Formats: sequence, structure tokens, C-alpha cells
Amino acid sequence: MKHGNCGIYIGRFQPFHLGHLHAVKYGFSKVPELIIGIGSAQYSHTLENPFTTGERFTMIKLALDEAGISRSSYFIIPIPDAEIHKIWVSYVVSQTPSFDVVFSNEPLTVRLFKEAGFNVERIPFLDREKYSATEIRKRIIENKDWILLLPKSVAKFMEDIKGLERIIELAQSDKPRASS
Amino acid sequence: MKHGNCGIYIGRFQPFHLGHLHAVKYGFSKVPELIIGIGSAQYSHTLENPFTTGERFTMIKLALDEAGISRSSYFIIPIPDAEIHKIWVSYVVSQTPSFDVVFSNEPLTVRLFKEAGFNVERIPFLDREKYSATEIRKRIIENKDWILLLPKSVAKFMEDIKGLERIIELAQSDKPRASS
Amino acid sequence: MKHGNCGIYIGRFQPFHLGHLHAVKYGFSKVPELIIGIGSAQYSHTLENPFTTGERFTMIKLALDEAGISRSSYFIIPIPDAEIHKIWVSYVVSQTPSFDVVFSNEPLTVRLFKEAGFNVERIPFLDREKYSATEIRKRIIENKDWILLLPKSVAKFMEDIKGLERIIELAQSDKPRASS
Amino acid sequence: MKHGNCGIYIGRFQPFHLGHLHAVKYGFSKVPELIIGIGSAQYSHTLENPFTTGERFTMIKLALDEAGISRSSYFIIPIPDAEIHKIWVSYVVSQTPSFDVVFSNEPLTVRLFKEAGFNVERIPFLDREKYSATEIRKRIIENKDWILLLPKSVAKFMEDIKGLERIIELAQSDKPRASS
Amino acid sequence: MKHGNCGIYIGRFQPFHLGHLHAVKYGFSKVPELIIGIGSAQYSHTLENPFTTGERFTMIKLALDEAGISRSSYFIIPIPDAEIHKIWVSYVVSQTPSFDVVFSNEPLTVRLFKEAGFNVERIPFLDREKYSATEIRKRIIENKDWILLLPKSVAKFMEDIKGLERIIELAQSDKPRASS
Amino acid sequence: MKHGNCGIYIGRFQPFHLGHLHAVKYGFSKVPELIIGIGSAQYSHTLENPFTTGERFTMIKLALDEAGISRSSYFIIPIPDAEIHKIWVSYVVSQTPSFDVVFSNEPLTVRLFKEAGFNVERIPFLDREKYSATEIRKRIIENKDWILLLPKSVAKFMEDIKGLERIIELAQSDKPRASS
Repeated sequence: MKHGNCGIYIGRFQPFHLGHLHAVKYGFSKVPELIIGIGSAQYSHTLENPFTTGERFTMIKLALDEAGISRSSYFIIPIPDAEIHKIWVSYVVSQTPSFDVVFSNEPLTVRLFKEAGFNVERIPFLDREKYSATEIRKRIIENKDWILLLPKSVAKFMEDIKGLERIIELAQSDKPRASS
Repeated sequence: MKHGNCGIYIGRFQPFHLGHLHAVKYGFSKVPELIIGIGSAQYSHTLENPFTTGERFTMIKLALDEAGISRSSYFIIPIPDAEIHKIWVSYVVSQTPSFDVVFSNEPLTVRLFKEAGFNVERIPFLDREKYSATEIRKRIIENKDWILLLPKSVAKFMEDIKGLERIIELAQSDKPRASS
Repeated sequence: MKHGNCGIYIGRFQPFHLGHLHAVKYGFSKVPELIIGIGSAQYSHTLENPFTTGERFTMIKLALDEAGISRSSYFIIPIPDAEIHKIWVSYVVSQTPSFDVVFSNEPLTVRLFKEAGFNVERIPFLDREKYSATEIRKRIIENKDWILLLPKSVAKFMEDIKGLERIIELAQSDKPRASS
Repeated sequence: MKHGNCGIYIGRFQPFHLGHLHAVKYGFSKVPELIIGIGSAQYSHTLENPFTTGERFTMIKLALDEAGISRSSYFIIPIPDAEIHKIWVSYVVSQTPSFDVVFSNEPLTVRLFKEAGFNVERIPFLDREKYSATEIRKRIIENKDWILLLPKSVAKFMEDIKGLERIIELAQSDKPRASS
Repeated sequence: MKHGNCGIYIGRFQPFHLGHLHAVKYGFSKVPELIIGIGSAQYSHTLENPFTTGERFTMIKLALDEAGISRSSYFIIPIPDAEIHKIWVSYVVSQTPSFDVVFSNEPLTVRLFKEAGFNVERIPFLDREKYSATEIRKRIIENKDWILLLPKSVAKFMEDIKGLERIIELAQSDKPRASS
Repeated sequence: MKHGNCGIYIGRFQPFHLGHLHAVKYGFSKVPELIIGIGSAQYSHTLENPFTTGERFTMIKLALDEAGISRSSYFIIPIPDAEIHKIWVSYVVSQTPSFDVVFSNEPLTVRLFKEAGFNVERIPFLDREKYSATEIRKRIIENKDWILLLPKSVAKFMEDIKGLERIIELAQSDKPRASS
């Protein structure tokens, strides 16, 4: 398959793990330039979205530096969710430089970009059960091994910002920001 | 019971089925003019709300044409949800021509319109278990018979816009628009 | 020029005047079915947007009835403004049945639909200086003749809902909803 | 005129001046309990709305303490603007204890509450040209006398929080938060 | 531990019960002045948030009057949820007079205020299983004893506004405002 | 003056001109790493904000490539305006990697960051009257020389996307998206 100059890959990266890195590398095997979109950019401090966009931005930068990927070849852009799904693709396009291929395995992302006429390509998974942000957050809460699922620099950053403590505390709060 | 000129009937119509058509006909047995409100108008491409407001608008038009109901007797108006429930009735009133009776069986809709002083009337159900949009979406996902629960023109339209495919794909996505 | 089945014509209709009626008739000379979009649908009770969407909906219905245009040939749909202009066309599409031509003279509307690849057609003006909603509101405030610029049924409706009184009072309030 | 137990008086209080205090006292001559609504509550750091809601809250408390008005007789409640004017009254009602009279001279506030069926009463002005928040902000920018237009405690508080400096700096910025 | 002049205590108060009153009293044992924030202020008419902010405001006022707590010592301020958790503390600060201690047991509230550098203090619970708003709403729905868990004046007010009826009706509606 | 590792510089860049490039270079004379924030990120297709965030993103990338500034030394991040000014800094912080100095001449930006405790530094202007986006848009509308005020690559990109035509058309529309 032949591609143009620029692809986009959108994830939530809560946190950015080795499966995400694998997907980024796969993207670079197809296109020379990649936009990495931080999805659900408005959320943080929830069990599903513990980290801020700024923290996730730093994780990606650290992981790609560690992997020796040149900063000249990618851009990182926050992408908030849109309440109206049907306009989300149009919003993404308004916020990013132009791209000609979308890398995604997420069914809704795939469908919305396809309905808008984009070229969408699946990413081969790297052991999906294991390299999953949900699994990593679960292991942190249950005090199981998780550190090998992340790039070293990301694991260290998460400890620096007391990210483990945050995930564990959020697990105790089922009703965000509300005492009853 | 005596009524004025215009009633309102609000549903989500995901999709518009024979139970909805039954309710519309019941409304017309009470009032000569009906506003049909498309509720949760901002949503589409979710499991509970697969279709856009534009698509639901077309479904209603097709179903009522098929049933021989004159377009001169009804208006279709999109009604988004309001985050603040207490102001929703006031919002509905600001977006529609005036009406003097509300047809609804949905408990919250009934309560909000009653608290605001409106005349609310229940609609006799047409086999509620069967004629339910939730049931229809479930049957589509499980590849069971569903086609007889819809007006023919709506069933055909859903196939034209690849609506079945959309519902089935959305069923695979529990985290809208987010790959983790 | 050959057209498909359905066109869209979007205005604010504050209030709906004979120039708007002229544009609607022009649309019907080109297509058999018309979507009439009520723009800036979220606004009312300001000097530029005195009437609610519900009131404007009623004005259009009355004017087209008076002009003998069958209700079977058009639909009226509220269209709120979007803060992000670039996604507005995509929002309009999500809220309406499909259309294949856009009737507009408003520069931004023309540009946004053109950038999105739509077929846009200009409407010949009917004495633009005179048949203008801004001019009509100005005349009402200055107590000058305005009644001949509107369809009779719309002029009567405006008096029924005390619309003149509202426009005059709003002209006294430069800072909406705020006493300082 | 006879009144019930509770009235509401809404202003922006940018800043709270002697004219506002006069209006509060007038309210208390009619009702024993008053809700003081801080309007446009979402805004601060603009030329027209320099102070935060928290700062305006403190100003009111200080001014009424200074005037010897018991805290037992009033409540202060932030009231953000609503984009949709027609629902604003319904929003105010949802956020406040019940009230039976509205004190206001602001034309839009008067109109919206009247359209919603409320009892609205005008407040006799105290030298309107002079006791005006717009006038006070203008005098501060032009380095003219302003201090006698405010309760002493409010003037002192404004100096404590460097409010004069803020107003003067904001006057230099016509394009909020944007360098071009 | 030594404290300043003012503390803040934020709850949803759906409804305000004896456990909340206990927390307020605990706050007053530490500081002379208390801001009582009504959290999730935008919500009402849902199973988890049945009462409007105005109704909750009245409940707090009644309960504190009944307990003999002077109105001169506290302020009640509505605090809506923020979609972006990380900015919520900054929003709270913009809407309230300044405070120097936060009373809370809710994990997310505790974490957000701590990350923003505030002094946060836990409140000793008063029989947590029993004095819980969730438990009270559950008892009302199941027609069990609940009245002794509330201040008398609050129980009476809930009956006056037909609050029990509302909770029971909302329990029948799992899909707010939508009939399918 | 000594600085840390990372600064932030926020502008609207409508379009990105040589004055902006000068400011970026000044920033790099103080810090090795720069976050370039695209302010008012939600706006496009207005006279003051003609370009989308995606287009402005591309302009910055082109201009800095042309100036020989390595992509490894900066990040570009969209920053929407916040309705509530007081929370804007907190929002910026949540969306970006951490920074320790803010470069700005815009009075409100300066004030908000200072009130939040940040180190803010003024940027020496490069012929302010001339190198101004407002001036450039004005010259384009009046068909005067403008091309020398922009980096060559930005001028070419603006022509490629028909940006001049867009600015000129928007100048004809004083009421965005509304025909009256």
C-alpha cells in the first residue's frame, strides 16, 4: 500500500504504554510524518482518564525520545471529545495540519472517519490483553506488576508526578467531586 | 377529554418503529395538529443513539407518508437534551410553536411538564415489550428478526444508509472514540 | 441549471419579511422541496434577535400558508450557531434530511458550504435596502411605517405576541440582563 | 403595595457602589428577606466585568455589614448569564430559594421576569448618572475622584486586592487574552 | 491545629441530612465562618440528584436555623461540576470569598484541593452507613423508615415540595427525558 | 536573567508574521525549549480569526523550518479561549508540558499569569505598527502590499489555501453565518 506524507493516530494514552509505542512505530513504517492526537483531552482525574493532557503530552515526548524517534517527524495535538459524534471528524480536521491516512483500531473512530471519506488503516496489535491502559491501571490498583508494560521513561515520570498514588486514590471515589 | 389545536409528542426514535407510529396516530385522535420532537437531538453514533437527527427526521417523514398522514398536520423539531433538567421544558417552549397538550409515557418527561403546569396525557402502549427501539437494536445486533417491527419505508431507509452495519459496529465499541 | 429534489435556505428571520418570502419562492422555482433553517436558533430577546425560534417557526408557517405554499413541500428546522465555524456545515448536515443545493447570499454561509464541497446558489434580491429585518426593527423603534414590509399574517402575529413592545423595550437595554 | 416574604435583586456589581446599597435598602423597605443575585457570574478580568464573583460576594458582605444590615436577612447567589435568554428566568428559579417579587430597573430583566409571570417592581434611582459602575470604572481609568461613590469598606477592599491596577491594565487590552 | 477565619465544606446534599449537619458543626468547631458549597449545582431531577440547587439551599437554611446556627456565620454558594477536573479548584476559588481550609472526605475533592496547595482536613464520620444520602433515597424508594435521618425541618420541607413522590417517580425512569 | 528549561509563548497568529518569528527567536535566546500556544483555537472564518488552528499550526511549522529552527526545540499546542478568564491559566497548565517562564506583551495574558504566580517576561517589539496581524489583514482587504511582512513560506501557504480570498469575503459579512 502506498501512502502520502502524513498520518494521524489518536489515542487516550492513559498512560502511554508499549502497545502505543508499537502503533507509533507501525505508523512510521507507512508514512514519514505522524500527528499523534491525545483523545478525550478535556478529561483528567477520573479512573478511566487519570492524567491531564499536559502529562500525557510529556509521556509521549519521553517515550519517543527513549525510542530514538526524531521530534522532527511528529506533532502531538490535544483532541477533546465532541458531544456530537457526527461533527468530531470535522473538528479534528480544523485543529490539525492536513493528513491523508488514519491509523486506528477503535470501532467508532474507524466508522466516523470512514463515513467522512477518509482512508483508514488498522494497526496490528501487540499482545492486546497485556498492553492495554485499562489493564495497567487495574494492576496498579491491585498492586501487581505493571512497570514492564511501559517505556522506562514513562514509568519514571509517572512516579515523579505521584501518578500511582493518584490512580489508587481515584479508585476510592466512585462519585467524582461529590460527597453525599 | 377536550383538547385544543396542537399537541407535542417527544421521542428519541432510534429508530422510529410501529409503536411510535401508533402513538402518533393516538395523538391525532385527540388533536388536529402535532409537533413531533426528536429528543436527544445532539447524539448519534452511540449504541443507544445510533442515528443522527437528520436521519431520524427522514424516518418520521417516510413513516407518516407511508401511513397516509398529511404533512400539513405535523411539524418535526429537533430537541437536544439540557444538562439542567429543570430548564428543559422552558427550552422546549422556546423552540416550538405553542402547544396545549403533551403526550408522553416517559416518567421524567411527564414530571417535568407537570411541574411546569402543562396538561400531560399518557399514550396507550402497543405491545411495549416488542415495539421498543432497545429491543430492535438488540435484535439487529443478535441477527434476529426485526424488520416487521418497523414501517416498511423506515426498514428500507435503514438499509440504504447502512444503518444495520453501523449498529453492529457500534456494539463493538464500549469506549466511544477512544482507543486505549 | 438543473437541481435535485431538495434545497436548503437558512435565515435568521427576525422577523420573517417579504424579502424572505421572495427567496423561498425563488427556491421553489428551482427545487420541489425546501428545508427552511432558522439560524441563530439559540438567541431571542436581544435587539438583533428579538424573537424565539418557536415564534419564528410560527411566522414562517403563517407566511407560507398565506402565500398558498403547501406544507407538504417544506420543513422548518432550527439551526443554532456553532462557536467553531469550520464545523457548522457538518452540524447542519447532521440535523437535517439530505439536500443537494444551498440557497444563500450571506458571505460566510456561502463560503463555509463551498469549502465543504456543496453546490451554492445566490438568490436575486428583492429591493434589499427595504426588505431587511434590520431596517424593519429600526422602523419599529423609530415608530415609522413597517407593516407593508411583512406578510399580513406575520404582522398580525407580531402584534398578538406584543412583539413591537418587546423590540422597543430591548432597544433601551444595551447590556442584556445586567443592571450596573 | 403588599409583599410576601422574599424578594430578589440582581446586579453585576462591578463594583458594588452606593446606588446598589440604596437599592438593597429600598428592597428591605418592601420585604423582610432578600436574595441578592450576582449577575454575569462567569465573567471577570474584562473591562466591563473586572471582578470575580468571589470578589463581588465579599464586596456585598462588607457593604451590608458596614450599613448595619443583618446577615440573617439576605442571601447572595451567583447567577451566570444564559446564552438562551428565554430560559434564564427558569434557571434563576432553579438556583435560588423561592421569591415572590423581583426588584429591577434593567429592561431585559424586567421583560423576561414579566413574560414568565412574575411580579416585578422598579427601584427609585439614586442619582443614576453618578452612581453607576460604568462611571466609576471610567473615573478610575481617567484617574478622577471615585472613592466617594463606594461604601468605605468596598473602596478599601478594592485597594487591598489591587483592583484599581487591574481595571487600568484591562483598559489597555482591547483583545482579551490574545496577542496578535 | 490552628485555623484562620474561613473554611469551605462542599457536598451535594441530596438531601441535606444529619450527617451533613454533623459535618457543619465539626467545621464550626475549627473555624468561625463557613462557606457551604452546593456541589453538582447544575443537576436536579435525576435519581442521584433529585433536588434543585434552590431546594437544597432552602434545606440547608432550614436545618441550620433548626440547629440554632446563626446565619451570620455561613454562606451557601452553588458550585457546578466542571467537565475538566483540573480546573475545578480554580473555578471554586473564582466563585467564593477567600477561605483557608477545606473540609472534605470525598477522595477526588481532597486530591484536587491538595494538588492545588490547599490545607485539607478530614471530617470524622457520623455513622457513615446510615447517614448517607444514597441510603436515604434508597429507603424512600423502598418505603422504609428514613425520616429520623434528616433534620425535622428538612423532612417537612421535602414533603411540602412533594419530594418523595419525585424520587419515587425518577426511580422508574432509567433514561432521563427520553422515550424510546 | 536566568531561566529554566521551557518557556511558553501564546499568540493568535492570524496569520503568523515576522513579528511573531522575532518573538519566537527572542524566546529561544532565553530558554532552550519553547511551547508555542495557538490562542483562540476554537475560532476561524471570522474577520479577526480567519484561519483554522490546523492552518495556523502549518504556518508556524513552515515559518520555523524556513528560519532553520529545529523542530526538536518546540511544541505547538492549541489553546481555546475560556469564558471564565480566572480559570484560563489553570486550563493552559492542564493542557501543556510544564513551563517556567511566560513570554507575552498582551495585558490580560500578563495579568492572569502574574495573578497565578508565574514568571512573566515582556518581549521587545519588532516595529509594532507594521508587524501586526490586524495591519496585515487590513492591507489584504485594501489590496495593499503585505507580502513582505510574512515569512515567504507562510505567504505561499496562504495563497495555496486561498486565504486572501477568504479574508476578503469575510470582510463583506458583518453578521457571521446569518442572512437577515
